[in-house]
Amino acid sequence: MKQVEKMITLMLESKDRKIFTVGMGRSGFVARAFALRLMNLGFNVYFLGETITPAAEKGDLLIAISGTGSTKMVLTASSAAKEIGAKVIAVTSFPGSQLGEMADLVVTIKGRTKAGMPTEEDYLARQIIGEREPLTPLGSIFENNSMVFLDSLVVELMHRMGRTEADLKRRHATIE
Amino acid sequence: MKQVEKMITLMLESKDRKIFTVGMGRSGFVARAFALRLMNLGFNVYFLGETITPAAEKGDLLIAISGTGSTKMVLTASSAAKEIGAKVIAVTSFPGSQLGEMADLVVTIKGRTKAGMPTEEDYLARQIIGEREPLTPLGSIFENNSMVFLDSLVVELMHRMGRTEADLKRRHATIE
Amino acid sequence: MKQVEKMITLMLESKDRKIFTVGMGRSGFVARAFALRLMNLGFNVYFLGETITPAAEKGDLLIAISGTGSTKMVLTASSAAKEIGAKVIAVTSFPGSQLGEMADLVVTIKGRTKAGMPTEEDYLARQIIGEREPLTPLGSIFENNSMVFLDSLVVELMHRMGRTEADLKRRHATIE
Amino acid sequence: MKQVEKMITLMLESKDRKIFTVGMGRSGFVARAFALRLMNLGFNVYFLGETITPAAEKGDLLIAISGTGSTKMVLTASSAAKEIGAKVIAVTSFPGSQLGEMADLVVTIKGRTKAGMPTEEDYLARQIIGEREPLTPLGSIFENNSMVFLDSLVVELMHRMGRTEADLKRRHATIE
Repeated sequence: MKQVEKMITLMLESKDRKIFTVGMGRSGFVARAFALRLMNLGFNVYFLGETITPAAEKGDLLIAISGTGSTKMVLTASSAAKEIGAKVIAVTSFPGSQLGEMADLVVTIKGRTKAGMPTEEDYLARQIIGEREPLTPLGSIFENNSMVFLDSLVVELMHRMGRTEADLKRRHATIE
Repeated sequence: MKQVEKMITLMLESKDRKIFTVGMGRSGFVARAFALRLMNLGFNVYFLGETITPAAEKGDLLIAISGTGSTKMVLTASSAAKEIGAKVIAVTSFPGSQLGEMADLVVTIKGRTKAGMPTEEDYLARQIIGEREPLTPLGSIFENNSMVFLDSLVVELMHRMGRTEADLKRRHATIE
Repeated sequence: MKQVEKMITLMLESKDRKIFTVGMGRSGFVARAFALRLMNLGFNVYFLGETITPAAEKGDLLIAISGTGSTKMVLTASSAAKEIGAKVIAVTSFPGSQLGEMADLVVTIKGRTKAGMPTEEDYLARQIIGEREPLTPLGSIFENNSMVFLDSLVVELMHRMGRTEADLKRRHATIE
Repeated sequence: MKQVEKMITLMLESKDRKIFTVGMGRSGFVARAFALRLMNLGFNVYFLGETITPAAEKGDLLIAISGTGSTKMVLTASSAAKEIGAKVIAVTSFPGSQLGEMADLVVTIKGRTKAGMPTEEDYLARQIIGEREPLTPLGSIFENNSMVFLDSLVVELMHRMGRTEADLKRRHATIE
C-alpha cells in the first residue's frame, strides 16, 4: 500500500526530529500505545497532552488518530501543527474529513466509525423491525484495526532501522 | 469458556458497586479503553491513577491487566484491593504468576509476553544462527489480544444488560 | 468578591449535575487537583480528557483554567460546552481574552502570565541593560495562585455543604 | 537549608542523565508540574506512569513526592529505583517514614498531612465540643507548599544553569 510506504518514509525522515501522536478517547489510547513503541525504537516521541511534551517545530511530525476525522481537539492540534510548519499524518476512516483534508498524508483504516452510525430515528425504526445491535459499538472496529496496523508498522520499522527486540527492551520502563 | 462466563457474572454483580481497572504501559491503555466502554455501558468505573478515582470498598471489583502477571505497580494495587475486601480479576498470560495467585478469578489471554522473552545471551546465539526477530516485540500480542477480547466482552455485556448502541452513545464524551 | 460568590453559587447549583474541569499543561494539573477535591466533596466531577469522562449535557458546568485565556484546546472545549448548553466558568488572568469573552462567569486570578511576557526582542534589550530574569518564569504565578484560590474554595464549599474532613477522607483513593 | 542545596546539587549532577518524578493523586499533579518546568529547563525528565517513560538506569534520579511518605505506589517505584541503582530524593513531611528511610536525600516540606489527621473517633469528640473543621482538608497544605517550594527551585536552577525565560519558552508546548 502506497500510503503505508509513505508513512514509513516520513517517520524515518523524522528520526532526528520530534514525533507527536494525538487522539482523544480510545483513539488516544491507541496513539499512546504507538508512541510507547516508537520510544522503545529510539524515536524522540511525545503524546500530546502529557506532561513533558516540548514545543513542536518546523519539520516535526504529528500523527493524528481519529476514526471520524472530525474530533475537535485533534483538529485543533493538527491545525496548530500545520501553522508551525510540522507535517501531519492522519490515521482515519474518512480521508475526505476535515482532518484528512488538512493532512500531508492520509492513511485510511477501515472501521464502522461513529460518523457512520445510524441516527437516533434509525434506531427506533430498526428496533421495530427487530434489527440486531452491531457486534462492535461506536468506534471499536477502527480502534482495534488501528492498533493492529500500527503495531505492524512497528515491526517494519524495527527491520528498517536494524533494531532487535533487545534494543527495544533496553528502553522499556523498568520501575513500574 | 468458564473463565469468561465467571468474569461476566462478577461484572454484572458489580453493577451497583464500583469497578476499577488497572495496568501499566500498553496494558494500561487497554485497561483504559475497556473502562471507557464500561462507562458507556453505565457502569460506575474508574481507571486507577486518574484524577477522580474514589475509595475502593469491600465488595468492589478490580480488573488487573498484566501480560506477565508480575508488574510491580499492578501487584501493589491488587494486594491493596484484596486487603480492603475488593475482588480481583486478573487478565494475564501467566495464571501461575504472583498476580494470578492472588486473584479471585484469572482470565488467561495467550501472548508472547516479555516474561517469555529470550535472554540477551539467547539473542547473540540466535543472531549467529540467523534466527529472525519476532513479528511482535515485547508484550504486543498480549495487548492486542486483550483489547479484542475485552471489546468482545463489551458486546456480550450490551446484550445481557439490554443496552443499545444509542445508550452507549448517549454516555459518550461530547466536548472533546 | 462577587465573582467568587457567583462561582460558589454556580457550583452548588450543579450538585446534582455534572461538573467538568479543563486546562492544559500546568493549568491542567491545577484543574485536576481541584477536580480531585470536588470528588472528595461528593460532586459528580470529571477532568476533560481522562478516560471515563461522560457526555456533557445542557445545564452541566465547565470550569476552564487558562492564565492567558487563549489556550487553543481550552477554547475548543469551552466553545463545544457552550454549544451543548453547558455553563462555562473561566479562571484566567485576562477577563478580556477569548475564553473570558465566551464564559458565563470570569474569575480573575492575577498572574504574570505568558501573554504578558516580553517579546524575544525585549529580552535582548533587557539583557543589554542588565535587567534580571523574573523570579517566576512563564505562568508559574498564575498556576500557584489558582491552586491556592481553588483550595480555599474547597474549604468554603465544605462549610456550605456541611461536609467534614472525615466525609472527604471516606471518598479518597485507598488502593494507590 | 542544607537539604535544598543537596537537592540542587544532585539535580545538576543528573543533567546528562535521566530524572523521573513520581507521586499519586494531588502530589502527582505537583510532581508533573515540576517535571514540566524541568523539561522547560532542558532536563531529560519523565513523570512515572506516562506513556513514553524509558528505562531507569544506574545513576539516574527519582524525585518521589508523598506527604505521608507511605503512599504504596510511590514506595514500590522508589524501591524499584533503588534496586536499579538510581538515586532517590524524597519530598515529604515525614522524614522518618518508609519513603524517607529508603531515600538518599529527604527534603522535608511541612504540612498537615493525612497521616497526621485525627481518627474518626476524634471527629465525634471534636464535633461535640464544637471544634471547627480545618481550613485545609487532607494533604492540601503539603501539596501547596510543595508546589511553591519546587517552583522556587526552578528559579534557582535557572540561575545556576544560566537559562533565561526565553530559553524556557522555546521548549514550551506550542500545539496545545
